[in-house]
Amino acid sequence: MGPRWKGQGAEAKAIADPMSSIVSQLQSSFLQSNSTGLLSGSIVLLEANIEKTDLLNRACFGRPIISAQKNGQWFQFSLEEAFYLTYSLKCINLVDENQHKISIEEVWKHMVSQRENFPNLCRAYCHLRSKNWVVRSGSQYGVDFVAYRHHPSLVHSEYAVLVLSLEGGSNGNGRLRVWSDYQCTLRLCGSVAKTLLVLYVQKHSIVDVESPSSLDSYTIEERTITRWSPEQCREDSS
Amino acid sequence: MGPRWKGQGAEAKAIADPMSSIVSQLQSSFLQSNSTGLLSGSIVLLEANIEKTDLLNRACFGRPIISAQKNGQWFQFSLEEAFYLTYSLKCINLVDENQHKISIEEVWKHMVSQRENFPNLCRAYCHLRSKNWVVRSGSQYGVDFVAYRHHPSLVHSEYAVLVLSLEGGSNGNGRLRVWSDYQCTLRLCGSVAKTLLVLYVQKHSIVDVESPSSLDSYTIEERTITRWSPEQCREDSS
Repeated sequence: MGPRWKGQGAEAKAIADPMSSIVSQLQSSFLQSNSTGLLSGSIVLLEANIEKTDLLNRACFGRPIISAQKNGQWFQFSLEEAFYLTYSLKCINLVDENQHKISIEEVWKHMVSQRENFPNLCRAYCHLRSKNWVVRSGSQYGVDFVAYRHHPSLVHSEYAVLVLSLEGGSNGNGRLRVWSDYQCTLRLCGSVAKTLLVLYVQKHSIVDVESPSSLDSYTIEERTITRWSPEQCREDSS
Repeated sequence: MGPRWKGQGAEAKAIADPMSSIVSQLQSSFLQSNSTGLLSGSIVLLEANIEKTDLLNRACFGRPIISAQKNGQWFQFSLEEAFYLTYSLKCINLVDENQHKISIEEVWKHMVSQRENFPNLCRAYCHLRSKNWVVRSGSQYGVDFVAYRHHPSLVHSEYAVLVLSLEGGSNGNGRLRVWSDYQCTLRLCGSVAKTLLVLYVQKHSIVDVESPSSLDSYTIEERTITRWSPEQCREDSS
């Protein structure tokens, strides 16, 4: 199943303005202005001026929050998004409610404490983003993420992504353990024209999971899972 | 969500010929002819003449098998179907490959040995059938059963049924343990216009699970699960 572009000209638009360059622009703009995000529980809030708002919207990071404020626009990021901007793109710093900068080690610890499965989800998020996929929440379809080839206004999401841990146990999200779950998930993916992409994350046992740098040593195995249709293998009758 | 009848006149047809009376006809026809089914592994095979074929098709038990035979039609039943016909309707007997009659206790033991979750599935199947629902496999949607108000040629299936064990552990089917599984299942149910019906089966600890009569003491709790839409609760703007 290839990308499903939204209307004529969408593909050309996407090719003319690749996601990698939008993210680069965002990165340098945020770096220049020394941007900070407020880490609060399991979300991160960031105030953006008009230029940054435009870049965040085009790169599809976070979601704008409706507020009464006139000059700035607030954005809310998920933990994975905030970590990617902080650790991978290094273009924002996170602060606590007293405006004190939080070190990346503390950020990591906090995020892991908020969500047991955070290291795997974060590794998967960064993996897809680093390959210039636009990654959004997949909760609507009961998966961890959906991945778009370009901005969601131009193209439908192509992959429904489940992040599983090869270690199993409490590290995983408890999905795809029985056949009926596969059947359910694949049937749903089929009906919304997405391919099921399973990312198996494996961490090396020697790694210090307390440190965010452990993330780089996680390996990812990518598998797309599809229903096998016996029809496809029939002898050509023509 | 109400029943979705297939075309005009389907509902009137169903009312004129209720499922309860079709099953009664089938029961007496099979009783008179002393019918036997061959228990083989996890299926049961039964040869039917024209009258019985018609009744089985109308009551929607089993599925006809294509064979070269001209006079009789063979039917294949699932374990739950065969057990219902044998134990609840008492209208067939099961035999082994040497044509020896198998006692109902042995039938039960064999079926449980074939499928650990059989007692729960069987209890749920019998429960729905006894209320005149037509019950078929739900594997296409990753659920245990689908339930129809009448024959599938007249009406679409209304419920996607998951059978869960209140005891949990190996008795269950491992579904609906995490939110994302609920999200996935409900989204799929919505897209195929079915309501998710969860049957929680609980057996009493004092019961002898070795005996088929234990089935009668299993209690069933029925829950339909739907997505809550905030829109539905908004003030009426009219």
